[in-house]
Formats: sequence, structure tokens, C-alpha cells
Amino acid sequence: MSTLAIATAKEVFDLLHDDLRAIEREFGGDTVSSVAAITEISEYLREGGGKRIRPSLLLLSAKAQGYTGGGMIRLGAVVEMVHTATLVHDDIIDAADTRRGRPSANTTWGNAKCVLAGDWLYMQAFRVALEERSFRILDLLIGLTQQMVEGELLQMEKLGRCISEDEYNALIYRKTACLFEVSMRLGSVLAATGVDVQSNGHLHSDSASTPITSMEERMGEYGRSLGMAFQIVDDVLDLTASEEVLGKPVASDLREGKATLAVIHALENGTDAERAAIQTVLTDQDFHRVTHAEILAILGRHRSVDYAMNIAFQYADAARNALSVLPESDYKRALLWVPDFVVARDK
Amino acid sequence: MSTLAIATAKEVFDLLHDDLRAIEREFGGDTVSSVAAITEISEYLREGGGKRIRPSLLLLSAKAQGYTGGGMIRLGAVVEMVHTATLVHDDIIDAADTRRGRPSANTTWGNAKCVLAGDWLYMQAFRVALEERSFRILDLLIGLTQQMVEGELLQMEKLGRCISEDEYNALIYRKTACLFEVSMRLGSVLAATGVDVQSNGHLHSDSASTPITSMEERMGEYGRSLGMAFQIVDDVLDLTASEEVLGKPVASDLREGKATLAVIHALENGTDAERAAIQTVLTDQDFHRVTHAEILAILGRHRSVDYAMNIAFQYADAARNALSVLPESDYKRALLWVPDFVVARDK
Repeated sequence: MSTLAIATAKEVFDLLHDDLRAIEREFGGDTVSSVAAITEISEYLREGGGKRIRPSLLLLSAKAQGYTGGGMIRLGAVVEMVHTATLVHDDIIDAADTRRGRPSANTTWGNAKCVLAGDWLYMQAFRVALEERSFRILDLLIGLTQQMVEGELLQMEKLGRCISEDEYNALIYRKTACLFEVSMRLGSVLAATGVDVQSNGHLHSDSASTPITSMEERMGEYGRSLGMAFQIVDDVLDLTASEEVLGKPVASDLREGKATLAVIHALENGTDAERAAIQTVLTDQDFHRVTHAEILAILGRHRSVDYAMNIAFQYADAARNALSVLPESDYKRALLWVPDFVVARDK
Repeated sequence: MSTLAIATAKEVFDLLHDDLRAIEREFGGDTVSSVAAITEISEYLREGGGKRIRPSLLLLSAKAQGYTGGGMIRLGAVVEMVHTATLVHDDIIDAADTRRGRPSANTTWGNAKCVLAGDWLYMQAFRVALEERSFRILDLLIGLTQQMVEGELLQMEKLGRCISEDEYNALIYRKTACLFEVSMRLGSVLAATGVDVQSNGHLHSDSASTPITSMEERMGEYGRSLGMAFQIVDDVLDLTASEEVLGKPVASDLREGKATLAVIHALENGTDAERAAIQTVLTDQDFHRVTHAEILAILGRHRSVDYAMNIAFQYADAARNALSVLPESDYKRALLWVPDFVVARDK
């Protein structure tokens, strides 16, 4: 690749094509069990696709730091397995009918098998990670999954209620940004272990004796900021996109009683009547008494969507800034491109 | 304690009293979360009691090998947390109304929160175990939880069907004996690490360089055999005890379509008519067409309960025999007593 800037998603995927295929194979091999239901459910979920954002981040982080070993393939599969496990359990919790445009696993196999399949996927992720023989990797993964579970429980406790921007930030960090952060950090841990590492002295100086390097901190900052931007945009699209573009019902967050950033802004800046209208939707979890159009009008009056998008842009900037410590490479250029892509997408 | 043999449960509990209290405190402290639902559900489950068999085995194993450090308190809490996590998820799977004579957690908090609370307990168990900084401990725990989850799924696949004795053995190993085995092995791992270990040269010779010692293998054999005996007796009591003694409805296994050892023996040795009668109950999952008394009569004709109990006695013997490698101590004497207690109990 000769141009300085990366312009399209295709260029990034070309850059990672072989490694992402290797991760698919690893994921596929890791999730074959002697118990038929586990293999079936895992295969169904794996074939359901998804954007593979988390393994891509891990690959870009590791490669941008000069890592060339097989650990990034194994851990790429691990972060996708953790992500998949959370989706299986979340679908049970939300009693979801569909996931990524197909029947959700719980509607096909039932809640009981899906509880266990999710448990098994978590354990398998840890088992594969354990093979790297790095306590730092396990600390990151176990801490991560616990944060994600706590985030899901916090969200349940806040359904139907107005929440503050701080509460929203804590929720989306645990729900999304935390796994982005850990994916980026894992790339640094691999690069810093010195196993299978390409010679790249200035990055790995004393990393063996210093468990958490400043490089890892910056990579974590990138992942966290990117994840926050990603979820804010996701939540805005849920409010504003058409069902046609989104491929799923719009305003599903409000229908589930979830107040997201733009709505929180309108709650904090609206009139008493506007606040009451929003609270009615959160309480009713439908648009019978107050319509979706009325909510959009309230958000429009207070430029609440602009407010939310502006914060997403700030997070995207923060993510890019965190990359200043990386040496120039195609992988760094790809990482610089991702935040733009995340905030500019329309679905 | 001066007598050679240990005669009562009270003597064993006196021997472990202080350590079991310390484990309760550890468990209590480990399961306080910033998320209220987790703390509440954990406390509810912890206060529900249970016999604390698994931490007791871990303590006896470690102490019989001369270990005196704090690891046995932390890992004692870990095995009880893993056990508790499986109970929470099992209750969701079985749609259980009660557990240990109280409303099950899922009836109080709902399935959604209990899925997440179970997840969190698994993660917290791993997190506490991770603090020991031993890959061997993590290998044991992750392998264990995966086996238990697979066992639960296997059992679901076999509900309502006749199974072979081999299939039954595989099921009860995963359901019960595996965690007994790991609890015993963890005692050996602690004793072999040389951290906080009392001088006891002949036990820890080259254990640092040999990850799995023959002592650990024998302790594992004890735990596995004891666990098999425990579950076979549990399953026999479910068939034969009165509801008054058992404190829960009898023949609940048959009502759930589960064939246990005595029933499998009758299936393999009965007439066509008897086989058909048993299969009817497994299919119907009730006693409307064939009564509980009829099933007991079939088992009586083939001495199927004696057959099952005889196998339990053999496992109890095997457990005791595995202890021959241990030096004499009160802890060894307690371990020698436990299999007798397990096979002689009436509830």
C-alpha cells in the first residue's frame, strides 16, 4: 500500500484478509465439542457473521507494534468468542427473536441450551487464552467479562428510568468500549512478551519486567475512545435511521425503556412537557401515547442528535490522538482510518 | 484428636471449623459487587447453606499434605462459587421453583438477572483463583467448568430416554465427581507449590518441575470415586426415600425423564413389560399411567437398588484405597471417614 491515508474499508480488510480467515478457522476449530448442541449453536452463531471488529482491532494493534506470531490469531478468536458468548446470554435476557437478521439462537435451541452454550463459550475463550500462559492476558479477559456482565445488569436496573450522562457513559463503557479496549491492549501484551516478536527495539524495551507498558495504556485509550464513539453512533442511528437502512426496527432502545445520549440531552435541556413526553415512552416502552415523530421533534428542537454526534467526534479524535506513539505503518494508517469510518457510517 | 478412627460428622466439622468459617468470610467478601443484584443474589445463595462438601474436601486434601497457607481458604471459596454458579444456571434450565427448601433465585430475581449473576460468579471464581498465579490451578478450574456445562447439556439431550450404564457414568462424573476430583487436586497443587508449605519433604520432592504429581493423581482418584459414590447414593435416595426424610418430592429424577443407575439396571435386566413400564414413566415424566410403587416393585424384583448401592460401596472403597499414599494425620482419618458417611446417609 503506497498512499498515506487509507480510504476504504476494503483496503483495511485486504490488509487483514489472511489473518481474519485464520481467525475464522481458529474460532471454528475451538468451538467443536463432543456435545452436539455446543458445536451446532457455535457454528450457527459463527456463520451469522458480524463485522469481526474486535479481532480486527486486536490484529491491527499487534501488527502496528511489530508482532508477527500466532498469538494474535488465537486471541483474535478469543475476543470474538467472548463477544459471541455475551450475545447468546443477552438474547436470552432480552427474549430477542432475531439477531443479525436471523432467528436468535434462543428461539431455535431454547433458553436452557443457550444458557449452557454461552457458559461453554466463555470457558472455551478462557481455555484458549490460558494456552498463551500469560497472567496479564487472563487478568484482562476475566476483568473484561465481569465488567460486561455488570454492565448488562446495571442496564436492567435502569430500564424505563431517566439516567444521567455519567450513568450512560458507565453503561456503554461496560457494554462496548471495554471489549474494544481489551482487544487493543491484548495486541500490546502480545507484542511486549517478546515471544514471536519481530525485532523492533524501541517498542519492547523493558516490557517483560513492566507488566503494563505505556504503549498498552495508549492502545487501551484508543480502543476505549473508539468503543465509546461506536456505541454513541449506534444509539443515534437507532433513533434516527430508517428501518430500511438499519435492517431492524428503529427506536428499539426507547421501546426497551433505554435512554441513550441524545435522549438524555433532551431530558436535561427540554421543557417540563418534553421531559414528561420522553418519560412516558420510557415507562410505556411503546409509542402509543407519544409517537416516535414527537420524540424526534423534541430531539430536533434541542439539537440533541448533534450534541451526541459531537461527543462521538470528540471520542474519535481522542482515539486517533492515542496513536501518536506508534511508528508509521499500514496498520497504523488503518487504525487512524477506523474512527472516521465508525462515526460516518449510516447503519 | 486421639482416637484412630473418626466417628461423627461433628468431629470432622470441628477439625475444619475455623477454616470453614474463614471460607464463608472469603466467599462473602468475594461476592460483594458494585451492582446490587449480584450482591443480593450471591448473599441469598450463600446463606441458603449447603453442606460445603467441596471446600471441606479441598481443606482436608491440603491439610493432609501438610499445607498451612491461605490459598486453601481462597480456593475453598472458589470451588463453592463455581458450585453456586452451576446451581443458579441449573435452576434456570430446570425452571426450578425451589432449591434447598427455599424459593430458587430465578423465581425471586427472574431468569435474566440469574443468567448474569451465574456468569458473574463464574468470573469471580476465576478472578480469585487467578490471584494464586498458578496456571495449573486455572487449567483445573476451566477444564472443570467446561466438563460440568457439557454434562448438563448431555443430560438435556438424554432426557426421557433409556441410557446405558456408561452414559450414566459419564453424566454423573461431569455433574458431580469432576468437582469433587478438582477440589481434592487443588489441595495437592497448593501443597506442591512450596508456597506457605510446611516442611514435609517426601511429599514435595520435585513437584515444582513436575506439574502433575502422583500424589495429585491419587487425591484426584479419591475425589472422583467419592463423587461417583455420592451421586449414585443421591440418585438411589431420590427413588427410595420418603418425601419427609428427603425434604423434597421423591422420584424427581423420573419425573424429569432421568434414568439413574438402579433404573438402568432394571431396564437392562427386566422383562419386556417391565422395560415398557419404565420407558412409559420416562416418556410421560409423571406417574399417571405407571405408578411410583410399580417402578419400585420392578426395582425390587431385580434387586436393582442393591446393585446400585453395591457400586457405590465399591467407589467408596476405591476412594479410601487412594489415600494409602498419605501420611497418618487427623485429616487423613477424616478423609477415610467421609466415604462411609456418604454411602450410609439417608438424605
